[in-house]
Amino acid sequence: MQKLDSQLAFIFEIDRLKAVYRRTMVQSDNNRQENSAEHSWHIAMTAQILHEYAQGDVDINRVVSMLLIHDIVEIDAGDLFAFDDPKLFAAQEQKEIQAAERIFGLLPEPQSTHFLQLWLEFENAQTVDARFAKAMDRILPLVQNMANEGGSWAVNKVTKKQVLQRNSYLQGLAPKLWLYVNQQIELACDKGWLIDN
Amino acid sequence: MQKLDSQLAFIFEIDRLKAVYRRTMVQSDNNRQENSAEHSWHIAMTAQILHEYAQGDVDINRVVSMLLIHDIVEIDAGDLFAFDDPKLFAAQEQKEIQAAERIFGLLPEPQSTHFLQLWLEFENAQTVDARFAKAMDRILPLVQNMANEGGSWAVNKVTKKQVLQRNSYLQGLAPKLWLYVNQQIELACDKGWLIDN
Repeated sequence: MQKLDSQLAFIFEIDRLKAVYRRTMVQSDNNRQENSAEHSWHIAMTAQILHEYAQGDVDINRVVSMLLIHDIVEIDAGDLFAFDDPKLFAAQEQKEIQAAERIFGLLPEPQSTHFLQLWLEFENAQTVDARFAKAMDRILPLVQNMANEGGSWAVNKVTKKQVLQRNSYLQGLAPKLWLYVNQQIELACDKGWLIDN
Repeated sequence: MQKLDSQLAFIFEIDRLKAVYRRTMVQSDNNRQENSAEHSWHIAMTAQILHEYAQGDVDINRVVSMLLIHDIVEIDAGDLFAFDDPKLFAAQEQKEIQAAERIFGLLPEPQSTHFLQLWLEFENAQTVDARFAKAMDRILPLVQNMANEGGSWAVNKVTKKQVLQRNSYLQGLAPKLWLYVNQQIELACDKGWLIDN
């Protein structure tokens, strides 16, 4: 049963993602901070619902699997806010790679390699599946912030330019969603939730 | 954009699952109660990792999708503890069906019918996919409670018989996991975390 023990150890280890808190707030739960486990659930759902807007051949099952694991490295590396100082991100990348090797390394082969490769594919954002997954990871906080008077944008003085750049995966890949995002960003500027610079 | 608006309304509505709290405790986050959104993420991961133990032709992508939505009805109906008074469950079933119709009804067709059918399949537990999904929903709290000195079992004075019955989906479907569960239940009795009756 050594194999099963390793798999159960992994399953228990990833419980810790429920203790990694993000800047995004959960409006429906007294505006507490969101954790990365429930966020991962929410974007896996979002990807399934918005799949039809992807142009190109997106394998939604791979995307869902990718989104379920995309933040697991934060158990070791912590969560960086999307709009933190760019200098912090280089060091973060190294921490995340080490975390991926340790955490997916708890699994037996071939699962260990499978999930490590899937995570690297998401990080590198070169395939259409990874790009769609990244796009979902960008659009959901926008939906959450727009429904919450600017949410983490307003609190952290985020600019229009930053949000546009972050959502640019949608351009080309999902033109209808890109149009929607642009409209929402204009609205957020009008309301003073984003800084128009 | 009316279709997209409906889809985004659904995506925002299900945010409320992050505010539905279960009896299971998150050991890695100061033993706070677990919410149903992060639980749904955790069992979708668990199903992927333990898929190989299923005998029979389990479509893991359908199972993952099923597990991601299986608790969404709790937004309206709330969470019942697995070992609550059985009389409470009949009324709960009606509440959950109404909730499924309301919440999946926010989506445009064919998504609305697709997810409602998938949820009903899980509830009815007749197909191999639904039975494997149910089995995952049962084994994960066991793993969590065993790693947490009995967790919600010990607090709520749960019996060996109750846990065995609840995990019986594994019998036949995943014999290695059924063996494991039986061993763990014996261990839990020895430790006084389950009542041996």
